[in-house]
Amino acid sequence: MSWKDYLTLHQAAHLEDFRTFLSIPSISAQPAHQDDVRRAALWLAARFKQAGFLQAEVLPTAGHPVVLAEYCPYPDKPTVLFYGHYDVQPADNPERWNSPPFEPTVVDGRIVARGASDMKGQVMAFLLAAESLIANGALELNVKALIEGEEEISSPSLPAFIEQNKERLRCDMIINGDSGQLSESTPLLGLGVRGICALEFDLVGPSHDLHSGTWGGGLQNPLHAMAELVASLHNPDGSVAVQGFYDDVEPLSPELRAWYKKIPWDEEAELKKLGLQEFYGEEGYSHWERTTGRPTLEVNGMWGGYTGPGGMTVIPSTAHAKITCRLVPHQNPEKIVMLVKAHLEKHLPRGVRLQVRTKEAGAFAFRMSADHPGCVAAREVLTELYGVPPVETMFGGSVPILGTLKQMLGHDPVSFGFGLEDELIHSPNEFFRLSSFEKGKQGYAMLLGRLAQ
Amino acid sequence: MSWKDYLTLHQAAHLEDFRTFLSIPSISAQPAHQDDVRRAALWLAARFKQAGFLQAEVLPTAGHPVVLAEYCPYPDKPTVLFYGHYDVQPADNPERWNSPPFEPTVVDGRIVARGASDMKGQVMAFLLAAESLIANGALELNVKALIEGEEEISSPSLPAFIEQNKERLRCDMIINGDSGQLSESTPLLGLGVRGICALEFDLVGPSHDLHSGTWGGGLQNPLHAMAELVASLHNPDGSVAVQGFYDDVEPLSPELRAWYKKIPWDEEAELKKLGLQEFYGEEGYSHWERTTGRPTLEVNGMWGGYTGPGGMTVIPSTAHAKITCRLVPHQNPEKIVMLVKAHLEKHLPRGVRLQVRTKEAGAFAFRMSADHPGCVAAREVLTELYGVPPVETMFGGSVPILGTLKQMLGHDPVSFGFGLEDELIHSPNEFFRLSSFEKGKQGYAMLLGRLAQ
Repeated sequence: MSWKDYLTLHQAAHLEDFRTFLSIPSISAQPAHQDDVRRAALWLAARFKQAGFLQAEVLPTAGHPVVLAEYCPYPDKPTVLFYGHYDVQPADNPERWNSPPFEPTVVDGRIVARGASDMKGQVMAFLLAAESLIANGALELNVKALIEGEEEISSPSLPAFIEQNKERLRCDMIINGDSGQLSESTPLLGLGVRGICALEFDLVGPSHDLHSGTWGGGLQNPLHAMAELVASLHNPDGSVAVQGFYDDVEPLSPELRAWYKKIPWDEEAELKKLGLQEFYGEEGYSHWERTTGRPTLEVNGMWGGYTGPGGMTVIPSTAHAKITCRLVPHQNPEKIVMLVKAHLEKHLPRGVRLQVRTKEAGAFAFRMSADHPGCVAAREVLTELYGVPPVETMFGGSVPILGTLKQMLGHDPVSFGFGLEDELIHSPNEFFRLSSFEKGKQGYAMLLGRLAQ
Repeated sequence: MSWKDYLTLHQAAHLEDFRTFLSIPSISAQPAHQDDVRRAALWLAARFKQAGFLQAEVLPTAGHPVVLAEYCPYPDKPTVLFYGHYDVQPADNPERWNSPPFEPTVVDGRIVARGASDMKGQVMAFLLAAESLIANGALELNVKALIEGEEEISSPSLPAFIEQNKERLRCDMIINGDSGQLSESTPLLGLGVRGICALEFDLVGPSHDLHSGTWGGGLQNPLHAMAELVASLHNPDGSVAVQGFYDDVEPLSPELRAWYKKIPWDEEAELKKLGLQEFYGEEGYSHWERTTGRPTLEVNGMWGGYTGPGGMTVIPSTAHAKITCRLVPHQNPEKIVMLVKAHLEKHLPRGVRLQVRTKEAGAFAFRMSADHPGCVAAREVLTELYGVPPVETMFGGSVPILGTLKQMLGHDPVSFGFGLEDELIHSPNEFFRLSSFEKGKQGYAMLLGRLAQ
């Protein structure tokens, strides 16, 4: 019996296992679900054992535990490490769900449940792929699965865990399952994500709000100062005006720019979808270059004064803003925060004081070569599985774990997952396509087979 | 018993009445308080009746009602009309109040409550002054009191009300109680106020909030556009950059500038009080000129995106701002709104749409002669009450009703009130000095006596 036949034969039982996994509300963000998170880890470790993994343990961290499963019978063969997470987003507002978030329901070829697409479906698909190979004596390389329980809360405990278990996590290649495809018919090969850093600041004027009639014209209005300062952060050509911001940025190579041109982009359709007249960004760059290849500085929130209905004639005491920057390779998130801070200080308008807060940890960008052996293997498998070659792209968002894994374990993680963009992750009625579940099992089995060659 | 003895005898009871008045949250700007506004009007009319006014009614307008009280027993004597308002500013951010805004609390000779200084204290003082005279048969002229409920939202319904009740409001002199003194020891004679006009606008980008990782750099962020647009409203020299803004502004005459120099101003003390390093405004003008003699444009509120705790990586769909301009004589509020709107349209950054709302009626500035008989009487009374002659000045705020009253009833309103500048009007912890309350009762009684001569 081939691994394919094995998967076909056990299809119904495997779907039941998936439902069982989904029915455990492993919400990492909510202390009330701490025991559920642990229960999901215990269930998953047991299921890895049942799949034939030689070891599968629930290991403690400073926060929620990690599941580490190992099938490493070959001292002389390479080792692949699969990264995933078993925790899920909260499922508040149950009234907005068509079926209870932790009672998985199959409707029209979709399984609806919190965590179905992000990413229990892909963890199960990988596990079952490995099981089908082990069951047929066809898993001809070493496999480790590192499944964490804190991804949805930014993986605070994972770096220390990896550091402490470096030897045990040693591998020759990393697969990141927390990823997706472009559509049901078109595969996707992701070659990078941007990094991120964040800061907040206040501009402080008079010690209390003042009447804008009595005082207007006589002192700096913190909202005027805020506008002037925020406006100073960008140049007329759309680039970031912070001195030194681009110092560590490598120009996009002619090869990369040629590669970018191949990413599909229907500008008219996208404008219509967003109700916009035009896209706008750094001059001289295309949309994909702007949103994935170039760094940005975006104000995510800005506020001060009276914001309620009607009018209130006030000069507010303070004004506030929150900023995030998206970074490209070689930009250091801590350095960028310092540069932005220096810009704010240097361009501070008269008559206000500046208070900067930098609470959140940043992340480096991550890019890998399209020629990386893992990418080559993924491309071949995806082409066979979908009948067309994958669209190759980078992402504008940030997946901090990629940089962490690369830095700590020394390999570029290959993103290989089966989520689709419309599957309502982080929203009510999250679902995963059963067709993606099937493709996932086959895809992981094919990838493990290909990598063993 | 003299009116003075009457006031002394009833001092405690009168303070209780004041507290009762202050405890009604008559916030005209917030629809949720509509019934409270009406309740304050009913209470006030009843209290005027109790004071001996021959008529006191709550009269409807298109908005909040007007209280009209009349003591007019003398067909052959002149009539004084007192103007005031019983509505108050919102009291949001209750956590910034040391005591609940509508539970009047007396601390160190001050009564703390929303509306205490602006201006329920002065309405009560006038009412009690009239009561003390009536009780002693000493009110020897006709008195009308017009107390509106929409001053804090720019009196939208009052002009129509006056137009419809012109005959009933006929008078020979007008006293505006919505005014103040310079300090506890120095009286003030106000000879003018600035006008006002207001507008709100939205900048509209994508049809829904977007992830700033996925989209950042690829489209105009409405917050960036807002900063750029608001920054464009002022020139580096502190003047307003709106084309045509100063077209109708008369230069300050040498006489007026000389007069301005006589207004006391302790810059160091004022900076200390406000926790500021420096004052800032239009180059070439003094503080009093900037805040009372020159027009301004101030942003009173500006907001968009995520403003809660922590981070949220969003490019918001919209950004918002509220603007008011303070005007000097000859500037037409409607014209200024049109000029600001034209500026916003002309300087609109790429990639966003502009929506302007102009809900509130504006007001012309008002200035009157220091030789007006009402000013002469006020000067005499204040000199007697404080032991020193009043400082004569103009105000930066707006009392739209002054222009309206003058235009519709044919008399220059004499400003005669007892608020002090530090009483946190429009801010948390607004208060009124009990000493001002006493001076107010006496001052109004003396003024009515003086005007009857």
